[in-house]
Amino acid sequence: MSDVSAVKAALKSQVIETPSWGYGNSGTRFKVFAQPGVPRDPFEKLADAAQVNTYTGVAPKVSLHIPWDRVEDYTALTRRAEELGLRIGAINSNVFQDDDFKLGSVTHPDPKVRRKAVDHLLECVDIMDATGSPDLKLWFSDGTNYPGQDDIAGRQDRLAEALAEVYERLGDDQRMLLEYKLFEPAFYATDVPDWGTAYAHCLKLGPKAKVVVDTGHHAPGTNIEFIVAFLLREGKLGAFDFNSRFYADDDLMAGAADPFQLFRIMHEVAVNGGLEPETDVNFMLDQCHNIEAKIPAVIRSVTNVQEATAKALLIDASALAAAQRSGDVLAANGVLMDAFNTDVRPLLAEVREELGLARDPFAAYLASGNQERIASERVGGEQAGWGA
Amino acid sequence: MSDVSAVKAALKSQVIETPSWGYGNSGTRFKVFAQPGVPRDPFEKLADAAQVNTYTGVAPKVSLHIPWDRVEDYTALTRRAEELGLRIGAINSNVFQDDDFKLGSVTHPDPKVRRKAVDHLLECVDIMDATGSPDLKLWFSDGTNYPGQDDIAGRQDRLAEALAEVYERLGDDQRMLLEYKLFEPAFYATDVPDWGTAYAHCLKLGPKAKVVVDTGHHAPGTNIEFIVAFLLREGKLGAFDFNSRFYADDDLMAGAADPFQLFRIMHEVAVNGGLEPETDVNFMLDQCHNIEAKIPAVIRSVTNVQEATAKALLIDASALAAAQRSGDVLAANGVLMDAFNTDVRPLLAEVREELGLARDPFAAYLASGNQERIASERVGGEQAGWGA
Amino acid sequence: MSDVSAVKAALKSQVIETPSWGYGNSGTRFKVFAQPGVPRDPFEKLADAAQVNTYTGVAPKVSLHIPWDRVEDYTALTRRAEELGLRIGAINSNVFQDDDFKLGSVTHPDPKVRRKAVDHLLECVDIMDATGSPDLKLWFSDGTNYPGQDDIAGRQDRLAEALAEVYERLGDDQRMLLEYKLFEPAFYATDVPDWGTAYAHCLKLGPKAKVVVDTGHHAPGTNIEFIVAFLLREGKLGAFDFNSRFYADDDLMAGAADPFQLFRIMHEVAVNGGLEPETDVNFMLDQCHNIEAKIPAVIRSVTNVQEATAKALLIDASALAAAQRSGDVLAANGVLMDAFNTDVRPLLAEVREELGLARDPFAAYLASGNQERIASERVGGEQAGWGA
Amino acid sequence: MSDVSAVKAALKSQVIETPSWGYGNSGTRFKVFAQPGVPRDPFEKLADAAQVNTYTGVAPKVSLHIPWDRVEDYTALTRRAEELGLRIGAINSNVFQDDDFKLGSVTHPDPKVRRKAVDHLLECVDIMDATGSPDLKLWFSDGTNYPGQDDIAGRQDRLAEALAEVYERLGDDQRMLLEYKLFEPAFYATDVPDWGTAYAHCLKLGPKAKVVVDTGHHAPGTNIEFIVAFLLREGKLGAFDFNSRFYADDDLMAGAADPFQLFRIMHEVAVNGGLEPETDVNFMLDQCHNIEAKIPAVIRSVTNVQEATAKALLIDASALAAAQRSGDVLAANGVLMDAFNTDVRPLLAEVREELGLARDPFAAYLASGNQERIASERVGGEQAGWGA
Repeated sequence: MSDVSAVKAALKSQVIETPSWGYGNSGTRFKVFAQPGVPRDPFEKLADAAQVNTYTGVAPKVSLHIPWDRVEDYTALTRRAEELGLRIGAINSNVFQDDDFKLGSVTHPDPKVRRKAVDHLLECVDIMDATGSPDLKLWFSDGTNYPGQDDIAGRQDRLAEALAEVYERLGDDQRMLLEYKLFEPAFYATDVPDWGTAYAHCLKLGPKAKVVVDTGHHAPGTNIEFIVAFLLREGKLGAFDFNSRFYADDDLMAGAADPFQLFRIMHEVAVNGGLEPETDVNFMLDQCHNIEAKIPAVIRSVTNVQEATAKALLIDASALAAAQRSGDVLAANGVLMDAFNTDVRPLLAEVREELGLARDPFAAYLASGNQERIASERVGGEQAGWGA
Repeated sequence: MSDVSAVKAALKSQVIETPSWGYGNSGTRFKVFAQPGVPRDPFEKLADAAQVNTYTGVAPKVSLHIPWDRVEDYTALTRRAEELGLRIGAINSNVFQDDDFKLGSVTHPDPKVRRKAVDHLLECVDIMDATGSPDLKLWFSDGTNYPGQDDIAGRQDRLAEALAEVYERLGDDQRMLLEYKLFEPAFYATDVPDWGTAYAHCLKLGPKAKVVVDTGHHAPGTNIEFIVAFLLREGKLGAFDFNSRFYADDDLMAGAADPFQLFRIMHEVAVNGGLEPETDVNFMLDQCHNIEAKIPAVIRSVTNVQEATAKALLIDASALAAAQRSGDVLAANGVLMDAFNTDVRPLLAEVREELGLARDPFAAYLASGNQERIASERVGGEQAGWGA
Repeated sequence: MSDVSAVKAALKSQVIETPSWGYGNSGTRFKVFAQPGVPRDPFEKLADAAQVNTYTGVAPKVSLHIPWDRVEDYTALTRRAEELGLRIGAINSNVFQDDDFKLGSVTHPDPKVRRKAVDHLLECVDIMDATGSPDLKLWFSDGTNYPGQDDIAGRQDRLAEALAEVYERLGDDQRMLLEYKLFEPAFYATDVPDWGTAYAHCLKLGPKAKVVVDTGHHAPGTNIEFIVAFLLREGKLGAFDFNSRFYADDDLMAGAADPFQLFRIMHEVAVNGGLEPETDVNFMLDQCHNIEAKIPAVIRSVTNVQEATAKALLIDASALAAAQRSGDVLAANGVLMDAFNTDVRPLLAEVREELGLARDPFAAYLASGNQERIASERVGGEQAGWGA
Repeated sequence: MSDVSAVKAALKSQVIETPSWGYGNSGTRFKVFAQPGVPRDPFEKLADAAQVNTYTGVAPKVSLHIPWDRVEDYTALTRRAEELGLRIGAINSNVFQDDDFKLGSVTHPDPKVRRKAVDHLLECVDIMDATGSPDLKLWFSDGTNYPGQDDIAGRQDRLAEALAEVYERLGDDQRMLLEYKLFEPAFYATDVPDWGTAYAHCLKLGPKAKVVVDTGHHAPGTNIEFIVAFLLREGKLGAFDFNSRFYADDDLMAGAADPFQLFRIMHEVAVNGGLEPETDVNFMLDQCHNIEAKIPAVIRSVTNVQEATAKALLIDASALAAAQRSGDVLAANGVLMDAFNTDVRPLLAEVREELGLARDPFAAYLASGNQERIASERVGGEQAGWGA
């Protein structure tokens, strides 16, 4: 896509969904460091998400996490979102923080525990109905820590049964997005460890079930963009959870650890139709800002995804295809690298200007005084966090 | 399976297939060290495989590798195998050592190269017909070394097309076994990197297409026994390529690097029906004995697989199930570990004695003088090897 | 060491130190699941450690963690330990849970924070004086999450300075044990990532500074027993933190994930003099029993280490050396595997019987009723935990 | 270093050494694909290296590999180099391709084999004398494939002894550069697996012994720039072997797999004095161009290193230091990313123009017709390669 106006149009229409929990406190098993100004309820999280959207222009959707974002009145929450120029994105279930879920939720050996877990998932669909959310996002911490602890195949049976019940409950325009993760918090075997497992379940469930690729959930050496290309080819890529990692599921800012990988991913997205609205890929962030200021970190993550997208769109597609066809390894690689080596910040600054935004969202936000304002206003109450 | 006679019966009926190329020279990219007595043609490889079967009693099948084992007269080769008490196992294709395959075989951008590759695969089916081999085993070195080098999804299209043509050619009792590998010799993206990719292709091809799990082909941290359990649950596990590894695809003796992992794998095989004849899982070795004597190394590998199987069969299934159901993590793990910690060598010695074999196949082979005999007899000619 | 009585003597004299925090609640960043009967103060932790020692006979030492085990009166704590047949082992510092340490402790850019951190370390030496503890164990969570966040070499300078001040404070019979860790909770660069870094600092500090090998702190593929052999050869191995892991720092029971690795480690310990009292290697456990009962889990960990040690001691040293000298790869490996494949549980049962203990410590503890007793007695108050 | 003229001066004085074997054929254990025009002797390799220097202007040094580059008359070879505007760089020893070295070279259990290996190393010093090479580069494939195969600590003793003898032989201006590698071709334990091992040996040898960091020789997740910073701080970084990798030691073009990592490495080099001539860091490439044209691949690798260096030099040092001191994580990371996101190709084009070179070395080389010329001229004879 070498036509600059087409590139700009694509960048203007991109939507990046930010996670409500990214604005709250988070940490490692060793310590959660609290930060001044952190939201104390879902409404304040929406306000923070709105800041990100105000400065970037491409983040109008917010993922919720239940029960962290449970409120009395979802209509009020949805209305507040709309007032802020936002809409509710995916509803993320949480079946990993109740004491009953110590040995699993939907895959637990005890049917009573499984019932409780499925009921929570069904509640999430209710919340989708109430908020207009199109996506139920499922990540399970289910798994085992020790060999022999439970029956691996039996847990798959239970998982399949639970997913089928929830899938049945979905409305026509609602999707189920199934996430996979190789490790943590289950250490020996997670119940949905890889894309193959998620894909196999989604295939059996039907067209409304799709796979979520969280960029931090793979074994070292995994080629994530291959998975992206494969799932798009199969029509089974539902969403991304963008973040970055050096070793494990570090949940750092997207693009911070390996910007070249993010670019390669966005290249596969672009060439395989993933930016077309009808493909309906949800580009979400899923991050933990443990030591850095949260709103600015989300802004930088959004602009990192934009920059990777812009570079991917600047790849000279016909030159690339010609080099690939002729088996010219260095030429083909060179076409890709030319785009990656381009500084796209001026182009994105122009795009923003044309949208009536500041050229540099990060600087503009810092200059706005919002950070100081929330730090002074949001005093007292309990800061939002992972709730563990 | 706590009944000792049932355990013994299962051990007696186990079949482990050995690879013809395991008897030839192999090495790393740095050096192939030749060994005295190495076979100089496929017939001598059969003789070596027969030695392994003579001493272990459970290795009556031999995998061939084409073109390394190409002969004028496959009927003669098959007859020779029968005379030696062997039968021909899987036919392994090789589309990675012809100069035309530098940038791929069935996924190559050039249709002429793909044609050549598919023709080779079809020739392998002819050889199956001629030898009575039930299994076509496909491993592709196809992939790319550099980002942008070729179109990832396009290569999948070509792969699917090639597999479909070969699948059509299979007879009613012939299977296609598709292997996956994360890395090497393609460095950036292999075209069948993981079980998910192999599974998705096999699913589309039909019931005769199954997945091969090579224990050395995964990313670090991958739980292989999960994959085994999952594929058995789906009816899609076709075969193992057993070997062991510390970092990459080291192709060391099975059970040498992580005997506990091999035991866990055999446990999942056992509890998910993988030892039943009707499940038709082919237990193959795929190894390179670069620095150790080859026949003895294969014998040890076979006995390592037997020991892992015996331990898996000794697990107290009802105690395990009870502990799992009650959520007693330590008890369940303890049942598994009890079996692993058992010294099963006396049991296997008894099994062998009951089969009329020596109690210790490794020692018996060394005492037989065969190693010295082949070293003195097999002089001149060209030693068999990977042929690279 | 093929002489059984010598093996038994070595097993009887082995000492495994258990961690006070292993008896308290722990978890992942997602959730800490509380368990009934968990200690509410350091005195109750000592009582639990005494249970482990009562049943295993080889765990008379307990590591403390400051501030988790901070008490008013260390003399009282030490006296209580003695009454229970225990003594105080290593004092573990904690400079990772104070809000000031968000960006580091001894390597923090701000000298005031560094001062606070060093003062804490000096306090730990005071506690060593008060309790008779011989070892100051230092693990630093210090590091950075993002490239550029701080100056890597500058942090080394600050680390060196802090270590030097604390080293100076040590008494003649006190040691500093420096731990390394590749990842978590710092994600980009930890300040003591590997044994080389710890070794280089210890070398400069002097003979009282030694390296701690935590078996869960390495990159995938690292050969830990090589490090053990190398450090013993250099006289710089101070201690182990035993635990096991599948992917990251899972802190599972020692020997649970890879019993063969634990055996190989103990083999290097044994052949390089690490079991000799004068080598003064401290064999500690450092584990988190997130989902399994804690005292029984520690007992199993202790017996796992004992079993690995017993197997290592049973290796036929002269046969091994002969095979190694002659370059007989399979024979040498076979000698090692013979020992590993031996079921040493009967031998250890005998050892225990000769010590006046029950043959099976795990079963004996479960039968003792202690678990039920503490669950009913330890009600109210705040359960001990990681305190994060 | 924000002063553009200083940046340019640094870029002009940078020297990147290219490996003679990078111009010859190479491959994987599966296949070596020959390429047209590949050199047939060391003199032709020099001619190819001269091409790289002609177009990049920063590659006047060539590493030799003995015995691959063994010639009758080293004076003639050196003179030829000078005529081509080159000088001889490091002499790389090869003690891994002789049949005697199957179980090791300097660490082999047999003293006769060790003698042979040390003699080869001493011969390499003779060649240094003859060619004016300043550096003896040592990489050992020594190690073991199976647990128990040999005595880990004993092999360290033999290694230390061999290194000491060779170190003694060095002249005043000659250095020993010791390389480490975690895996391959030894699979279980390599004898110099990590920087810590190399560092410990170099420390004992003395000031002329320094460590080589090959960017492809680490475990996954290793922070290479930390090692670089640490070794520079210790005065023990002797050289780089640049290349890139996705999983193992892929030996791809430097900067191809992770350009951000290469930038981070060059940042640590720059801020820790590694670009100063007196630090004497040798910036070498060590790569295998298995499927891509070799001279152009080396040119791209050189320009990739230049681009990473340029970006590192453009980092606003005072802004970075200020942000680091104040603990502003996002600001500090932002300063680094600003430099990385800059397109430095125009700057490098200017640098080249000022040196009288073409702005784009890759394009200029391709336009020169040299590739076609060598393909037509270098026919017959035996192509140079790894010689395995």
